[in-house]
Amino acid sequence: MQDNTAHRHRPIPMSRVAISGGFWGERQRVNREVTIPAIYQKLEETGRVASWAMEGPADPPPSHERIGVRVFWDSDSGKWLEAAAYSLAAHPDAELEATADALIDAIENAQFDDGYLNTYFPVHFPEGQWANLRDSHEMYNAGHLMEAAVAYHQATGKRKLLDVLARFSDHIAATFGVEDGKRRGYPGHPEIELALVKMYRETGEKRFLDLASYLVDERGQAPHYYDQESYDRGESPDSYWAGTYRYCQAHLPLREHTEANGHSVRACYLYAGIADVALETGDEDLLRLSRVLWNDLTRHQMYVHGGVGPSHHNEGFTFAYDMPTETAYCETCAAIALAFWAHRMFHVDPDSRYIDVMELAIYNSSLSGLSHAGDEFFYANPLTAYPGVNPQGRWHENMEDGHHRRTAWFHCPCCPPNISRLIASIGEYAYSQAGDRVYVQMYHENSASMDIAGSEVRLTQETQYPWDGSILIGVNTVQPAEFELALRIPDWCYDYQLAVNGERQTAAAERGYVILSREWSDGDQVELTLAMPVERVMPHPSIRQSAGQIALQRGPLVYCLEEVDNGPRLANVCIPESSELDASFDSGLFGGVSVITGRALRIEPAEESPALYRHHSQTSYNETAFTFKAIPYYLWANRDLGEMRVWIRSS
Amino acid sequence: MQDNTAHRHRPIPMSRVAISGGFWGERQRVNREVTIPAIYQKLEETGRVASWAMEGPADPPPSHERIGVRVFWDSDSGKWLEAAAYSLAAHPDAELEATADALIDAIENAQFDDGYLNTYFPVHFPEGQWANLRDSHEMYNAGHLMEAAVAYHQATGKRKLLDVLARFSDHIAATFGVEDGKRRGYPGHPEIELALVKMYRETGEKRFLDLASYLVDERGQAPHYYDQESYDRGESPDSYWAGTYRYCQAHLPLREHTEANGHSVRACYLYAGIADVALETGDEDLLRLSRVLWNDLTRHQMYVHGGVGPSHHNEGFTFAYDMPTETAYCETCAAIALAFWAHRMFHVDPDSRYIDVMELAIYNSSLSGLSHAGDEFFYANPLTAYPGVNPQGRWHENMEDGHHRRTAWFHCPCCPPNISRLIASIGEYAYSQAGDRVYVQMYHENSASMDIAGSEVRLTQETQYPWDGSILIGVNTVQPAEFELALRIPDWCYDYQLAVNGERQTAAAERGYVILSREWSDGDQVELTLAMPVERVMPHPSIRQSAGQIALQRGPLVYCLEEVDNGPRLANVCIPESSELDASFDSGLFGGVSVITGRALRIEPAEESPALYRHHSQTSYNETAFTFKAIPYYLWANRDLGEMRVWIRSS
Repeated sequence: MQDNTAHRHRPIPMSRVAISGGFWGERQRVNREVTIPAIYQKLEETGRVASWAMEGPADPPPSHERIGVRVFWDSDSGKWLEAAAYSLAAHPDAELEATADALIDAIENAQFDDGYLNTYFPVHFPEGQWANLRDSHEMYNAGHLMEAAVAYHQATGKRKLLDVLARFSDHIAATFGVEDGKRRGYPGHPEIELALVKMYRETGEKRFLDLASYLVDERGQAPHYYDQESYDRGESPDSYWAGTYRYCQAHLPLREHTEANGHSVRACYLYAGIADVALETGDEDLLRLSRVLWNDLTRHQMYVHGGVGPSHHNEGFTFAYDMPTETAYCETCAAIALAFWAHRMFHVDPDSRYIDVMELAIYNSSLSGLSHAGDEFFYANPLTAYPGVNPQGRWHENMEDGHHRRTAWFHCPCCPPNISRLIASIGEYAYSQAGDRVYVQMYHENSASMDIAGSEVRLTQETQYPWDGSILIGVNTVQPAEFELALRIPDWCYDYQLAVNGERQTAAAERGYVILSREWSDGDQVELTLAMPVERVMPHPSIRQSAGQIALQRGPLVYCLEEVDNGPRLANVCIPESSELDASFDSGLFGGVSVITGRALRIEPAEESPALYRHHSQTSYNETAFTFKAIPYYLWANRDLGEMRVWIRSS
Repeated sequence: MQDNTAHRHRPIPMSRVAISGGFWGERQRVNREVTIPAIYQKLEETGRVASWAMEGPADPPPSHERIGVRVFWDSDSGKWLEAAAYSLAAHPDAELEATADALIDAIENAQFDDGYLNTYFPVHFPEGQWANLRDSHEMYNAGHLMEAAVAYHQATGKRKLLDVLARFSDHIAATFGVEDGKRRGYPGHPEIELALVKMYRETGEKRFLDLASYLVDERGQAPHYYDQESYDRGESPDSYWAGTYRYCQAHLPLREHTEANGHSVRACYLYAGIADVALETGDEDLLRLSRVLWNDLTRHQMYVHGGVGPSHHNEGFTFAYDMPTETAYCETCAAIALAFWAHRMFHVDPDSRYIDVMELAIYNSSLSGLSHAGDEFFYANPLTAYPGVNPQGRWHENMEDGHHRRTAWFHCPCCPPNISRLIASIGEYAYSQAGDRVYVQMYHENSASMDIAGSEVRLTQETQYPWDGSILIGVNTVQPAEFELALRIPDWCYDYQLAVNGERQTAAAERGYVILSREWSDGDQVELTLAMPVERVMPHPSIRQSAGQIALQRGPLVYCLEEVDNGPRLANVCIPESSELDASFDSGLFGGVSVITGRALRIEPAEESPALYRHHSQTSYNETAFTFKAIPYYLWANRDLGEMRVWIRSS
């Protein structure tokens, strides 16, 4: 077992990682120029910005509407502020900063003297304040605002929002806890746990960590807090709309959990928070819990594109190996939360297998949540799309007109600012450090500075990754420095070449990293070439929904076939085992992407017939060969809408 | 176009068709000895019998529960009485008749002086009477009671219930209609239309047919009645819980419909009623409508086992070629209603293609609704079952513990008495007559008498159908009689042999029948041998969910593989195109059934791994040959519960 206290693994903060171009440089440009302004405009249009003025309508909403999406409006402001902060850190922008400052002023003005902060309850439903932690999202909002506060402090040095949220945290700690006179509450939607650890790291003040620990420890304890607060409201706990506290991971004390359960965004934020608390406290039991949950999720409940949570019903998990493709929910926020959790898992248990999942979730089921143009969003990220779906028979946020399409906003707009803040902060995930070792986690065009072995060292990466597996890493250092460079060898890579200053190296990977240990001099160059062939991915034999089918992967990217490239009735397309699969760079597509082509067969009856079913003895079939074209999954539904499949029949 | 007035096609009533043994003899015995008593016991236990005493609790239910399943309790009594009546007709049983008489007395006592009859509204929600036709099921209940009244009159000659329902019908006709002072209402759940036509046929009184015609003609007209009654209740029509009047086939005037829509049980009862009205009135427009809807449903929206309505969401139709298998709803009642409609379609448009669908729905997705022992029921009849399903992530009536299993009763128990009445009345579907032609529609052990060509003729069938395609038909007649015997050649049969008194006949089939036209003498024997090989069924190329898979059919029976016979992970089982498929009779299974066996491959990775996804380049696969065993679909889930599949991968 890794020692987590003596030799802490920490990310190198994004403030020290400049994205200089390449794949993420372009994604960050779009985020900065399109996505962040577009989301702010929606926050204004929908009244979220104005809500901080704390002026409500004279008439409160009817009781049955009192806990609706309105209760988590505050989190949307928080996530947008966080995205803006990350963007400002890399690209100062006086206008954006002024907008953010004004919003922060409004937030400060909205805070009550006792530290309570919420735009909904005091104005619309005062008796609801802290009366329904199970559903009210007050702590969830607090958490997102805390993350914004930390990010904004780091980006601008301004601590107004940090102070506001410190006061709110103190209010929460004064209200909830194990001490006499406090209530033993905790949030129905976890998120604040990881945010409080950020507050702790930013301020060094242990009270934030203590509150996070309390929230983790109290969750699911008997007598059940949500039962008690239900009785206090005059409601039976049996009337809980979600039917089970599994939905919010509160059916058992957390340390007794053995599987990832319930609403997947709640789950992954919570598990990330548990890992954070474990990392800071060294609590072995929480570390064990983290590994148990991680193994369950990644061995039983994760889609090939890193999405999690198959069911619309609970927006979450169902059971092991249950991976419906067309009805897969795979909320954008869940993939992002999984990436957050994965990143934390590495830092409690340094192994590249966590980063493999992080990278998978980022490049595929997270990034698919945003349109190429940057102004439309997916809520659900299915693995099969079929147009013409009748909204009478199915439902989800992106399916109003029978097409699964991105839209500019949602009734519950949690995903748009989430993907925006992830992209803005992508630099945070590139490097980690432990003592005199620096881990290179993600490969992309960047320049990162770090203090290592008593020296200021700068690493630069030049690469076309993820389109190409060649990475050139330059070392800049004022004086020679002895440190270890740990280069991640992704799980999809079975063959790599490594050279330092042109000299071939033969180091083997340990826990997914090759370690180059030497005295580095200014101008040293590391050349890493990751073989990136097209791979056919086969599902676990218990995944019934994809049996007999393959997915295509190249590097970290999972691919899909779209109707616009391959014609309709993609279910009848079969990629024979014998087909050679080629990757080529298409510079005219989405500004340049690698596509996969190969020979496929379209297997259909030789003659059209209106019959729904035909007997084999009476029917002949054509196997029409054609060259299929697959594009990266994250780019689907950016051209003509139509069918899409990740899993393709094979033979 | 067939002339529908000059030469009426009529079923030979079940009262003249004695089931003497064989497949249906045994099914009727179980129905009589087990199912009918079991359902009555549930009617008593749940208060349905007692409800006719019209005594309610002092406190009415809260307003939001006022339109729940309680509003259609009366229909359960009606359907049970109808099943009991059919059973009594074939097997007199003084005790059963006394029970039915007592229930009928109670129903008569519950009727109001103005003819209104309902156990719910007058007792629990008086102001709700006729206030919400969209949801209240008052006419639906009336329809089922009418069907019971007709059946009971036919079975026993007793007309008490018939008179009660005639008065209720008159009350409805006095309340609703196009005349001044009447409201232009019609039922949210159609059913009464076909029941009124039964009332008309039984009594010869045209007012029942007129009311049925009105209900068909008024449905969906503007201004919309359901809008108006919503406003009258002080509700916005927009708050309709089902979201669209498509749900109840009232989004457009019926004659403008072009597709089968909405809740599938509502739809198929309605379409059966339309066909009935068309048959009796000769309305060409309704005949055209019937054919349009039939073609849409059977060419676009019917499962291979005759089930209809893929979606749990609306318990109904979605869009063309949408055939999910594991989540298929395919309510038992919908398959039964489809069989009813199919039977009527033949009589407006004599062609065996309707009877093909009727037989498919009866033998497969209807009969599966009842356990082999006769005391447990399916609500949904999916084409794939996978155990371990977490009720948090999915829902339906038969899935409480993660298995799709039959249960003794339902919250909404519409299916149990429905399958019971179908089995009890199966004789009704065996023969039809038009002038001097008698159609043999279903093959089973029976003896039927009919008046034809001025003679009393008795036909007897000896056959092991559906296990075997040999049918021996005996003719008994006092004096030689010239008439046509039209023998149905099912759509699944590509080869048949026919002999009369040992002499080979070579007649070709017309509209699915071979016509034997001759002077028949007492003791004549017809020998029909329908080739009944195992057929591989291929889905239409637009049915994405079954692409690359086959179903197995032999005769009218669709087969399935169960885990108990074939082991788990059935998704990995592939039946190669080259496999020979054999049918054999297993006398030890369920009292004797034909099973299908053949060579299959189980394709799984050569080595176990916890990895959810593996790359083909790193994985080898075993193709393990084994002999699979398929059983008739209708018998699944009668042994150890586990996986089940109708559609099996093929190569």
